Amino acid sequence: MYDRLKGFRDFYPGEMSARREVIDTVESAASRYGFREIGTPYLERTQMYVDKSGEEIVEELYAFEDKGGRDITLTPELTPTVARMVVAKQQALSKPIKWFSTRPFWRYEQVQQGRFREFYQTNADIFGSSEPEADAEILAFAADMMTDLGLTGDDFEFRVSHRDILGGLLRSFDEDVDVRNAVRAVDKSAKVEREEYLGLLSDAGLGYDQAREFADLLERGDLDEIAEVGGENVESAVENLRAVLSAAEDFGAREFCEVSLSTARGLDYYTGVVFECFDSTGDVSRAAFGGGRYDDLIESFGGQPTPAVGVGIGDATLQLLCQRAGVWPDEELSTDYYILTVGDTRTEASEIARELRAAGNVVEVDVSGRSFGAQMSYADSINADTVVIVGERDLENGEVTVKDMSSGDQTTADIDDFPGDRDAPTYEDYE
Amino acid sequence: MYDRLKGFRDFYPGEMSARREVIDTVESAASRYGFREIGTPYLERTQMYVDKSGEEIVEELYAFEDKGGRDITLTPELTPTVARMVVAKQQALSKPIKWFSTRPFWRYEQVQQGRFREFYQTNADIFGSSEPEADAEILAFAADMMTDLGLTGDDFEFRVSHRDILGGLLRSFDEDVDVRNAVRAVDKSAKVEREEYLGLLSDAGLGYDQAREFADLLERGDLDEIAEVGGENVESAVENLRAVLSAAEDFGAREFCEVSLSTARGLDYYTGVVFECFDSTGDVSRAAFGGGRYDDLIESFGGQPTPAVGVGIGDATLQLLCQRAGVWPDEELSTDYYILTVGDTRTEASEIARELRAAGNVVEVDVSGRSFGAQMSYADSINADTVVIVGERDLENGEVTVKDMSSGDQTTADIDDFPGDRDAPTYEDYE
Repeated sequence: MYDRLKGFRDFYPGEMSARREVIDTVESAASRYGFREIGTPYLERTQMYVDKSGEEIVEELYAFEDKGGRDITLTPELTPTVARMVVAKQQALSKPIKWFSTRPFWRYEQVQQGRFREFYQTNADIFGSSEPEADAEILAFAADMMTDLGLTGDDFEFRVSHRDILGGLLRSFDEDVDVRNAVRAVDKSAKVEREEYLGLLSDAGLGYDQAREFADLLERGDLDEIAEVGGENVESAVENLRAVLSAAEDFGAREFCEVSLSTARGLDYYTGVVFECFDSTGDVSRAAFGGGRYDDLIESFGGQPTPAVGVGIGDATLQLLCQRAGVWPDEELSTDYYILTVGDTRTEASEIARELRAAGNVVEVDVSGRSFGAQMSYADSINADTVVIVGERDLENGEVTVKDMSSGDQTTADIDDFPGDRDAPTYEDYE
Repeated sequence: MYDRLKGFRDFYPGEMSARREVIDTVESAASRYGFREIGTPYLERTQMYVDKSGEEIVEELYAFEDKGGRDITLTPELTPTVARMVVAKQQALSKPIKWFSTRPFWRYEQVQQGRFREFYQTNADIFGSSEPEADAEILAFAADMMTDLGLTGDDFEFRVSHRDILGGLLRSFDEDVDVRNAVRAVDKSAKVEREEYLGLLSDAGLGYDQAREFADLLERGDLDEIAEVGGENVESAVENLRAVLSAAEDFGAREFCEVSLSTARGLDYYTGVVFECFDSTGDVSRAAFGGGRYDDLIESFGGQPTPAVGVGIGDATLQLLCQRAGVWPDEELSTDYYILTVGDTRTEASEIARELRAAGNVVEVDVSGRSFGAQMSYADSINADTVVIVGERDLENGEVTVKDMSSGDQTTADIDDFPGDRDAPTYEDYE
């Protein structure tokens, strides 16, 4: 017997059907906004990730040398791949480029609740627009996807911020502050004591009084005050944030957005509006997912300067959020018909099965030569709505028996009239 | 600029939409037969493949050591993984187990037409039935999938055989023949000269006259004659093959099946009926896909003896077959509506977009602040069926303009009546 690798998952049919329903819902929302599905390789050159994130990233990657001596990596995220694809066909693609895909990624990390070494993400990105409407459309798609899943504003909120508000404000206190580390401190602020937070800000180069004043300003979150203190760059970032929220209002997503200046996103490549989706109850302490604007990435991949904004939705945290809100789909099979044979009735049973399948139904027949009881118990195990019993004796009278599996009621039907011209005949049609 | 790895593919939206349509068609056929989707890991322990196929298989694998010192492999095929999953929950799963999935696999091979290092397969398998109906159901699913794609009996044929016919017949000539190599010789027989074929059979242990007699018998393909020459085992294999074809008749797949005793499938683990799907025109010389019965695998993975039969459908050869038959879907985008804004009409345009999306339509709006002409040209590039022009001046009269993009005809509509209670309003509704 072989074991599965740690941090990897097998999905059996019940669980998979719930996952498929959720993925279909997410992708359907993306499609309705005109995001187009793409297919991407699962392996890329390791150099792509090293150039983007530094040599130390390799420790987290499934990176190895292939038989041709290439350093290759199981893709840990989608963004570098789509950046490569945009650069490769930049002239031919009409803008805005709006793409989505759902697929696995891999990181060699500590396994914990909601975190696996093999995890799935739906990514949706817009390339080629720097307008606030593009940021807002990402928020609107994310909001539609969540409400389509059955979630409401009571279940989740989008915490929205802008990287230049933090960066500009920090620089207005001290030109030489280490913005990257200070932003990381802000990112951590909700999880650590205030003294530690202020200490981290000091480590990043703020004086102690500056750190306190900065922390207080963020906490009050008054955008006018922040714009005034922060100066020109912060003012235009605030203006951009407000423009995105105004577009989000028109697009129906504003009601889910909270301005939350301490939301910074861990990743360094964001350049504008950033957001994270949180469980409103606070039960799920990590963000369910997040996204934002990253206008510099395409150029850093050798392309023409191309503004970009996107969101990446991970399967595990979304599942936790749905489960806590009680909207995760039932993890069970569904079957429209089981056609049960008694005696040598395969020809007639097959004909019925074929007609029902042609109408789009899920139909199982016996493929194991089993008894009436064993077939009935199997029909039950696959949650068949209706069992059609095709028995030798009934057939002599030109009849089949139609059994409703939820009530247990059954009746006979003329075999020439089953299914007849019905797409989905039920017990009720014949009682 | 980074390059893609050799033998890997990027799928941009046009091509991807055709691929998605084909995958959906294949999976829909599987679902209607009651195959249930599963999700499987993309990495497994290398040992699983070595035990199944021998040490030399590692040369073809993307195999490496992970950061925890495990020897792991990017899965080159699905069967060992599903065997592991069946064994892990053998008691809990009700039989027959009918599973399908579509996903990529990887082999480090020479890249050529229709063969990539990263390739996709839809696999469908039945575990737990040794009855001919199970084999026939695999054939019936495969036939439905092909006809659903728009293919007909003029485009493809299933060449059906049985491994024990070959094996038994070979042993009836010489108890000590190397069946494995002789079967491989048969597998090659269509591609090599007769003399070479007879030589390969001799190498496998047949005398020259035996080889000629064996080859002639296969070529005549008379099942009664073969059963008589082959003795008891061959007789029961012939009987089983006929029972499968008889069930395939009831299931609607017989018309696509040709008995072809030289069809042996390359893989060694088949134990009963095997089949390959070929392009009828002969233009695609390799099999498009194939499958068969493999009753010993689950036991060899440490499970209880469990009969099994399945099919694996590769994306690249299926695409070649569909393209030669002229049924490969158009590789283009489709869009129901583009909502074009002129002036400051975002609020009204967004409202229309939201209503149309709620009804399930694919709707794009401007997110780039572009001119009338640039928006119209973008709408054209995404193949929008209908453009709704929401202009400041029209709005003053409470109207929008509805333009049919194929004819170029346009008319105005009362904004309160667009979309009104229509799910998919068109120019015709308002002209």
